[in-house]
Amino acid sequence: MTPRKKLEGLVAATVTPMTPDGRINLSVIHQYVDYLVSEQNVKNIFVNGTTGEGLSLSIQERKQLAEEWMCQGKDKLDHVIIHVGALSLLESQELARHAAAIGASGIAVIAPSFFKPTNKDELLGFLQKVASEAPTVPFYYYHIPAMTGVKIRVEELLDGIREQIPTFQGVKFSDTDLLDLAQCINKKEREQFVFLYGVDEQLLSALAIGANGAVGRESLLSSLYCTYNYLGRKTNLMLQAFAKPDLALARKYQFLTGEFLSFVIKLGFGVAQTKAVMTSVSGIPMGPPRLPLVGASEEFIAKAKAKLESIVWPDGD
Amino acid sequence: MTPRKKLEGLVAATVTPMTPDGRINLSVIHQYVDYLVSEQNVKNIFVNGTTGEGLSLSIQERKQLAEEWMCQGKDKLDHVIIHVGALSLLESQELARHAAAIGASGIAVIAPSFFKPTNKDELLGFLQKVASEAPTVPFYYYHIPAMTGVKIRVEELLDGIREQIPTFQGVKFSDTDLLDLAQCINKKEREQFVFLYGVDEQLLSALAIGANGAVGRESLLSSLYCTYNYLGRKTNLMLQAFAKPDLALARKYQFLTGEFLSFVIKLGFGVAQTKAVMTSVSGIPMGPPRLPLVGASEEFIAKAKAKLESIVWPDGD
Amino acid sequence: MTPRKKLEGLVAATVTPMTPDGRINLSVIHQYVDYLVSEQNVKNIFVNGTTGEGLSLSIQERKQLAEEWMCQGKDKLDHVIIHVGALSLLESQELARHAAAIGASGIAVIAPSFFKPTNKDELLGFLQKVASEAPTVPFYYYHIPAMTGVKIRVEELLDGIREQIPTFQGVKFSDTDLLDLAQCINKKEREQFVFLYGVDEQLLSALAIGANGAVGRESLLSSLYCTYNYLGRKTNLMLQAFAKPDLALARKYQFLTGEFLSFVIKLGFGVAQTKAVMTSVSGIPMGPPRLPLVGASEEFIAKAKAKLESIVWPDGD
Amino acid sequence: MTPRKKLEGLVAATVTPMTPDGRINLSVIHQYVDYLVSEQNVKNIFVNGTTGEGLSLSIQERKQLAEEWMCQGKDKLDHVIIHVGALSLLESQELARHAAAIGASGIAVIAPSFFKPTNKDELLGFLQKVASEAPTVPFYYYHIPAMTGVKIRVEELLDGIREQIPTFQGVKFSDTDLLDLAQCINKKEREQFVFLYGVDEQLLSALAIGANGAVGRESLLSSLYCTYNYLGRKTNLMLQAFAKPDLALARKYQFLTGEFLSFVIKLGFGVAQTKAVMTSVSGIPMGPPRLPLVGASEEFIAKAKAKLESIVWPDGD
Repeated sequence: MTPRKKLEGLVAATVTPMTPDGRINLSVIHQYVDYLVSEQNVKNIFVNGTTGEGLSLSIQERKQLAEEWMCQGKDKLDHVIIHVGALSLLESQELARHAAAIGASGIAVIAPSFFKPTNKDELLGFLQKVASEAPTVPFYYYHIPAMTGVKIRVEELLDGIREQIPTFQGVKFSDTDLLDLAQCINKKEREQFVFLYGVDEQLLSALAIGANGAVGRESLLSSLYCTYNYLGRKTNLMLQAFAKPDLALARKYQFLTGEFLSFVIKLGFGVAQTKAVMTSVSGIPMGPPRLPLVGASEEFIAKAKAKLESIVWPDGD
Repeated sequence: MTPRKKLEGLVAATVTPMTPDGRINLSVIHQYVDYLVSEQNVKNIFVNGTTGEGLSLSIQERKQLAEEWMCQGKDKLDHVIIHVGALSLLESQELARHAAAIGASGIAVIAPSFFKPTNKDELLGFLQKVASEAPTVPFYYYHIPAMTGVKIRVEELLDGIREQIPTFQGVKFSDTDLLDLAQCINKKEREQFVFLYGVDEQLLSALAIGANGAVGRESLLSSLYCTYNYLGRKTNLMLQAFAKPDLALARKYQFLTGEFLSFVIKLGFGVAQTKAVMTSVSGIPMGPPRLPLVGASEEFIAKAKAKLESIVWPDGD
Repeated sequence: MTPRKKLEGLVAATVTPMTPDGRINLSVIHQYVDYLVSEQNVKNIFVNGTTGEGLSLSIQERKQLAEEWMCQGKDKLDHVIIHVGALSLLESQELARHAAAIGASGIAVIAPSFFKPTNKDELLGFLQKVASEAPTVPFYYYHIPAMTGVKIRVEELLDGIREQIPTFQGVKFSDTDLLDLAQCINKKEREQFVFLYGVDEQLLSALAIGANGAVGRESLLSSLYCTYNYLGRKTNLMLQAFAKPDLALARKYQFLTGEFLSFVIKLGFGVAQTKAVMTSVSGIPMGPPRLPLVGASEEFIAKAKAKLESIVWPDGD
Repeated sequence: MTPRKKLEGLVAATVTPMTPDGRINLSVIHQYVDYLVSEQNVKNIFVNGTTGEGLSLSIQERKQLAEEWMCQGKDKLDHVIIHVGALSLLESQELARHAAAIGASGIAVIAPSFFKPTNKDELLGFLQKVASEAPTVPFYYYHIPAMTGVKIRVEELLDGIREQIPTFQGVKFSDTDLLDLAQCINKKEREQFVFLYGVDEQLLSALAIGANGAVGRESLLSSLYCTYNYLGRKTNLMLQAFAKPDLALARKYQFLTGEFLSFVIKLGFGVAQTKAVMTSVSGIPMGPPRLPLVGASEEFIAKAKAKLESIVWPDGD
């Protein structure tokens, strides 16, 4: 890994491979890394996040997984961001120290969602206590209000954040409030921050307000979500089209991704189904999810696979 | 009015001028039309909608207002769309017949929000009964789930809608679910539909997935919201920049609109405040809102005015 | 009607009979009154409320219905409370004047639910403007936050309410927040208010905190909901048991009502289904609901009827 | 502890004492036990629950606390129920085994709230996997939908639950849906289950539908909530009044508890404030809460203390 390299392009939120009896399956991580790099052209990953069932794992498991991703990705990936959020501040701190010790490119923290921070200061207080345990590791806030119920606007959170969290680097922004995102990007003093947009089906709309082609600067908007596990290559083509700009072409990719997502969302689409699709597409056995999630049905898998195969992409694939 | 003209560009959702003691004030509609056309370059309007407090008016008032807008706009506006939705189907039907009788360019219907339709068929049943009372008037569905609580996806609603509602023409889409919007636009058979995007601060993001520069075709995406009452000219400049495409310039306009909205939203921004800002900017007395809304505070008006005046637009204004 | 009589015991929220083609059916009101009085032992009614689809009717229809109920109930009912709430203040005021003119025992107003009052003063402002149009008619606030989204606590609303609304008489309290209800009842200065509890399945629990056996005083807690259309007699037996007090017996009635409601709620239970059950039990044709509501399925009707008939009540019926 | 003793009367959900710098403070548990028994007449406790910030603690801390409560309560308390719920099934199982090993009177599990079970089977699947790790310890489901967002009705969950979880013993029911509670109690086959009602301010209403005076049977309804830490004695007097039955007297206690809660809720009342009140009333230093919660303000503490002292209870205290 080359930590000095800028975070650019797609970031895949990895799923967590499990054995049929529900334990984490470290043995396929090696294969998973190769698949992302060679087949999907994705060289940045987000580990132990929502898609990775991070909060359903024990602390010990999260450490083991982080280590394995770091080990296997060392010479192949550009960035490995470890999600270290937890309901318990103490556990989150422990995970942050561990991520620092194993050399993670960044750590991310989701807002605690059982007791919820009710204002900027309470949220920042929590984040700061975690970030300070890894004082040399870039820190990302993971904003996903639909899951956490914590709706503090990111624009407000960012005001003066570097004074509290010197390592603050950016936001995994998984929300449809594009006014908030636009205001984050708009603020001059934030130009050095990275916004990883986490709503795949709206990526193009986020790019419209945030992409920045200027040379020599940190990319303002990368993106991160589960589809990049298996649609990374296509999404990269969309990014290229947008950069030209060839909006008509970019839109075609976005519409097709949207068509797939729209189809599976109607059938019921979540982490369990993402694992099943990923298994089906990559051939790597991702296994079942952990309770309270239950595995995707055979019917879902068949339908999703057929739909995905029926899509004709602009690149003729 | 020239009903054959295509619906293009901005549509302003008008506020309803009221006298200080709370009655509708028809006497300034004339002035309002001139202001929109000359000062804001806006030639399409949406009457008696949410911004216009349509559901807070009596049936009689709604008819009087519609008539006055039609009368004053006859030779000056391109499109006058009358919102005729109501909780009572009978009243909605009565308003639809009235709108047809006075020659409205289109009618729109919001989902009933006290008893809520729970699936596509129930919603379509209601809309169909209204649309059929005005069988020659283009019909628009007004989708605004944050206000109505009716979250039926538009994509689903549109499936086969012309069979039920032959006059169906499009959707005022006031939601942040851009996957839904993208799928609506994506479907080939819907290309003739119009999507009026109703979330001002995300217009550019919606344009990214929906604008269509092909000559000779119906514009797929116009836009409609309260800011176009006083920021219509600026938004038109954004549309022009996007059409080139000059995304960087378009983004500047979007960011500045967003900066204003973000500022006033923090202070509390709704229909009452929109009326106050519009009064302040246009010089036309829009009056107070009707209960249960209460008028904007003097403090709000002063702050909003100062903020608006502090913005330096890319065109040097 | 004897307006001086105290409001005591059950109040039935009436459904609105409709013809098969969806117009209001005034011809069966006569029969409906007799049924309530003779078969259910219910002598107080609430007209044009939620159960009565009041907000789905036109203003004209609401007046006609109110008149017919007043006319038919004149010598048979004790109290006819007319719901006059509407989204439009003007229409609500018109209905209030009408109710006063025809001699209603009381008027009630639901919180406006499209534009929502956000604090006590906004809500009170709206209510006051309606109440003052009927200055000699007892006024009730209709609190049903699950339908309106207006969650202003009643306890807070009642503080000093008589100064603003001298006719204020009480609350139709359709919420499960029994702390709020208890605090309303607890306040000494409110002892003269009436609380009509509107969640049938929790009536016994509300009685526990609010019944008052003192002689010569206004009853603090009556009750009102759709089941009293067809389970009025049984609920009266529960009230008698509670008054003794024979809690074990009261509980049996509550459990059985709850068992029925629990059963139909699983099948989908609302106004449409209430009309169907009422038709089935009383033999009076209540007709279909109005759109956006759709009629109960034959399957629902059969199952609900069978369930109701299977219940063995403590009185051997 | 005498595990064979029936679970009767109040159960106090304990707070977790912390040092000023935020570590758990085991040194005052001894004092806390004595206070509950001698001052509040409460001999059953619920440890590491919501009030106890269980989900904000590390697994190690939860074990240490459970051990200390067991150790100190051994000869003084009747029942110590340990909450072992966690987002991670593995950690919940580990805590269950630990609770069994130290001889807990019962274990309880909250529904996982990040990934949420969406139906009975998914919830039951999770609970079963935890319960089976402590096969001889009575198992309680902790139902608190307002915190977890998991709204699966308890009535439905209980259907046949003993076949899946032979140790199932009851429910900590912290919800205002008294129809659901009533139906749980109503079912004959559930008579052996215990329902610990967790909404203090509605306890009397729950008693009305669930208390059971029959001799020789398991009490159907005990109660559990934070106020019993400092209002246990008063609540016991309410239970006695209800048992007579002297509803008027019981109501007085309920109204006064409600008056206090209503007062503090307006000021903002949660776990942090409960700890502060408990410190103030008992003299035992409960310390601050853990982030993301922040400590109660001095102003709150002073006002809450004054309010509590101003209440004149029926027993003259």
